[in-house]
Amino acid sequence: MTAHQALDEAAIRRRIDQVVQAIRAMDLEGVQVAYAPDVVSFDVQPPLRHPGAEAKRRSWSEVFAAYRPPLGYEVRDLTVTVGGEVAFAHSLNRLSGRLKRGGNGGFWVRATYCFRKIGGDWLVVHDHVSVPLDVRSGRARLDLEP
Amino acid sequence: MTAHQALDEAAIRRRIDQVVQAIRAMDLEGVQVAYAPDVVSFDVQPPLRHPGAEAKRRSWSEVFAAYRPPLGYEVRDLTVTVGGEVAFAHSLNRLSGRLKRGGNGGFWVRATYCFRKIGGDWLVVHDHVSVPLDVRSGRARLDLEP
Repeated sequence: MTAHQALDEAAIRRRIDQVVQAIRAMDLEGVQVAYAPDVVSFDVQPPLRHPGAEAKRRSWSEVFAAYRPPLGYEVRDLTVTVGGEVAFAHSLNRLSGRLKRGGNGGFWVRATYCFRKIGGDWLVVHDHVSVPLDVRSGRARLDLEP
Repeated sequence: MTAHQALDEAAIRRRIDQVVQAIRAMDLEGVQVAYAPDVVSFDVQPPLRHPGAEAKRRSWSEVFAAYRPPLGYEVRDLTVTVGGEVAFAHSLNRLSGRLKRGGNGGFWVRATYCFRKIGGDWLVVHDHVSVPLDVRSGRARLDLEP
């Protein structure tokens, strides 16, 4: 790894850490700064494909509306790969907290983030967040642990 | 985009096309050449994280064992982003065919591929393939169309 790549990797890890802090604080603006305007998200919930930063804003505001503060957000096994102006990262993440409608919510997801360096800033141009599928039952597996 | 990036993008599109042809032909070796030995896959089925090319081989051989030939594999909305020795791509994919146990199988998935150029060859070092989750019912959404 070159010194330049090490600096870029550190910048991307800071970026992800900022998003995690913003999620825990339920700070929609703080989350939103990470996304490029034309981000394409393969998000946890339907549809298959969510185009545009406005769709991410709606998804996060629905999550924040469903929970009482504080929100927990854990990131495990974060791996970052950088090359020039393009990078990607993946991790296992768990959002957790008390639902407003009662009970505790939260499960582990797989998260992949794809970045471009735009105007000197690393922005998410694509992300993919999901849970595995049990093909036989058609149910999503929300009970898995890393 | 530079001329170099255009060549790299063309090479990655060829790579994905080779994998698609190999899937349709149920050619396990043809699929397998796309993966780096230390690929980390967030695959359709559990567990959360599948480390290593051998895990991809097991997943694909299970798929190939479940269907009668020929297998259909459609790729839509393929987007490729290249930077130096790192690239990523995403698309909506649909595998389809006649199941050996009877009936037709197949549904649309979201696919993200993350590449590194290793020894002059673009290899998948991370992939993420999933269907969306209906959070209220806990069911996976296998009925979605692009």
